[in-house]
Amino acid sequence: MNRYWSATARALQPYVPGEQPKIAHLVKLNTNENPYGPSPKVLEAIARASGEALRLYPDPESAGLREAIAAYFGDITPSQVFVGNGSDEVLAHAFLALLKHERPILFPDVTYSFYPVYCGLYGIDYRPVPLDDDFALDVADYAPPNGGIVFPNPNAPTGRLLPLADIETLLKANADSVVLVDEAYIDFGGESAVALANRHPNLLVVQTFSKSRSLAGLRVGFAIGHADLIEALNRVKNSFNSYPLDRLAQAGATAAIEDREWFERTRQAVMRTRGALTRDLEALGFQVLPSTANFVFARHPRHDAEKSALALRQRGIVVRHFRQPRIEQFLRITVGTDEQCAALIAALREILSS
Amino acid sequence: MNRYWSATARALQPYVPGEQPKIAHLVKLNTNENPYGPSPKVLEAIARASGEALRLYPDPESAGLREAIAAYFGDITPSQVFVGNGSDEVLAHAFLALLKHERPILFPDVTYSFYPVYCGLYGIDYRPVPLDDDFALDVADYAPPNGGIVFPNPNAPTGRLLPLADIETLLKANADSVVLVDEAYIDFGGESAVALANRHPNLLVVQTFSKSRSLAGLRVGFAIGHADLIEALNRVKNSFNSYPLDRLAQAGATAAIEDREWFERTRQAVMRTRGALTRDLEALGFQVLPSTANFVFARHPRHDAEKSALALRQRGIVVRHFRQPRIEQFLRITVGTDEQCAALIAALREILSS
Repeated sequence: MNRYWSATARALQPYVPGEQPKIAHLVKLNTNENPYGPSPKVLEAIARASGEALRLYPDPESAGLREAIAAYFGDITPSQVFVGNGSDEVLAHAFLALLKHERPILFPDVTYSFYPVYCGLYGIDYRPVPLDDDFALDVADYAPPNGGIVFPNPNAPTGRLLPLADIETLLKANADSVVLVDEAYIDFGGESAVALANRHPNLLVVQTFSKSRSLAGLRVGFAIGHADLIEALNRVKNSFNSYPLDRLAQAGATAAIEDREWFERTRQAVMRTRGALTRDLEALGFQVLPSTANFVFARHPRHDAEKSALALRQRGIVVRHFRQPRIEQFLRITVGTDEQCAALIAALREILSS
Repeated sequence: MNRYWSATARALQPYVPGEQPKIAHLVKLNTNENPYGPSPKVLEAIARASGEALRLYPDPESAGLREAIAAYFGDITPSQVFVGNGSDEVLAHAFLALLKHERPILFPDVTYSFYPVYCGLYGIDYRPVPLDDDFALDVADYAPPNGGIVFPNPNAPTGRLLPLADIETLLKANADSVVLVDEAYIDFGGESAVALANRHPNLLVVQTFSKSRSLAGLRVGFAIGHADLIEALNRVKNSFNSYPLDRLAQAGATAAIEDREWFERTRQAVMRTRGALTRDLEALGFQVLPSTANFVFARHPRHDAEKSALALRQRGIVVRHFRQPRIEQFLRITVGTDEQCAALIAALREILSS
């Protein structure tokens, strides 16, 4: 810290992302990346976009990508779609444009740890709402007057899904504030709230290309909601960085959302592996929360989670452990390939029996 | 506007970027892109980075790129380098982290029109400081106590350069506030203030890959300054979006800064063409401000600038006109290829004589 820092910079408690280790040959099950690479059509589109035209600015409105996203969902128009440099940027703009009000916003006590960081960045008051003992979200707990509600669905890092009927209850009970549903993991077994977008002007759904589209390395996220909400996001974006998506990201993401076959095949593979991984962990004595994400959240009644994570790391396998109240005895394990999951189970068997 | 918008979203006056026309075959001289494409080594690096690894998050710290930038400047360490998704994002973070204080910040009255927009976004007070009648910046005008000083060097849209000695005077006279020198166009004839970075802890220099590196379409910018200033930028970045640069942008930008030969050849070509363009415009009766940028700023004593811009557009040539006090009779013309500039001159000759 030094005298040139603003009060904002001094007060920040930045987000700490999962480790991106630079060691080769690790089994990397710590940041929920897809074990399968992107569609070959994505790589072809990037190759076509990479050339002399990189000297020119990209389309500041990402019109082609927004049209492709709207077409993917069917009853959505491009004016209902906002895109950004990863869903983290989309969330940041949404916090400033739509969740900064006099009343505090509400989100679960166990959730994506970037939410309180955005609140710190923009001076937004918030109240964590405890999940129940099984880490389920009860919409009745979100009755207090609020400046907005935000939660991941399925929740992170628990993997638990909130049914659409409950989301609709929340939307009706909070008609005066925005309900932001952060669907980073929705494609691994959940039903998207985009289906409700044309009925509820206070709904904003955020998704990402990082997980189910295998493009964490390309940084593309998007939001869908009423055109008036999208306009607020555009105002913030055009006051921050008019060109958030480079030419290659626009081209690659457009090809990704158009290749439904690759998407379907890879997400089904992840879901199949998740089932097997869950059964194998349970056979080792783990309690595994029901997951509709590309990760599982598991604890062992007789083995310390942090020690297990360390022992796995010594065997070249990285999983995520959070030193946080309520969840410090859990491991969050990304669903890898069948081979990666088999390596994880073999290592855990060894660790638990030593 | 609707009831869900935050007070911030309601009050914003977003930046309006230069048009990115979707019509083919235009002579596009309106947004200061480089007329030459990026180095072939950039395209090779992007091709190598585009593959299965796109499923993985990029390095959140862009370590390789920051090392390459530090090595390019020589006496700079990677801890003195910050990178972002275009220099607009870098500037946005710098405004929030280093220029938001109780006192107003100072910048020229005729300058990059994004500065007041950032102030609106983050609630920063500012005072425009008039340039003199020749659009030169007089450092004596920046004596008032302030929360920071920011200006482009060379200035935009005038193209005028402030010598390093004047910048050092400003740095010494304002030891309690940050002086941000926005060097988007410095490589076309100016001397970078990076040479002062190790002597002045209050200096932040911002540059971009969009102009002299021919990569406007890839979105990469950077800042250089004392490690304490860079740390403040990192705190904001890690509270906003931990992964601002995708894998392809990191790879392409690293190759770009390493290819000094391509950089040297293309920037020399732009500077040569600028000289010829200036002479040709003067021969048509234009007054052209002395430029060290990849654009010229010119007015004709007898022809209305907005009308000329419109007439050029009808002939398939786009230049930038600002409907702003003091400069509404100027055209900002990007230095294109020799052929593009010849087409511009021929069209202007026709327009002025009609």
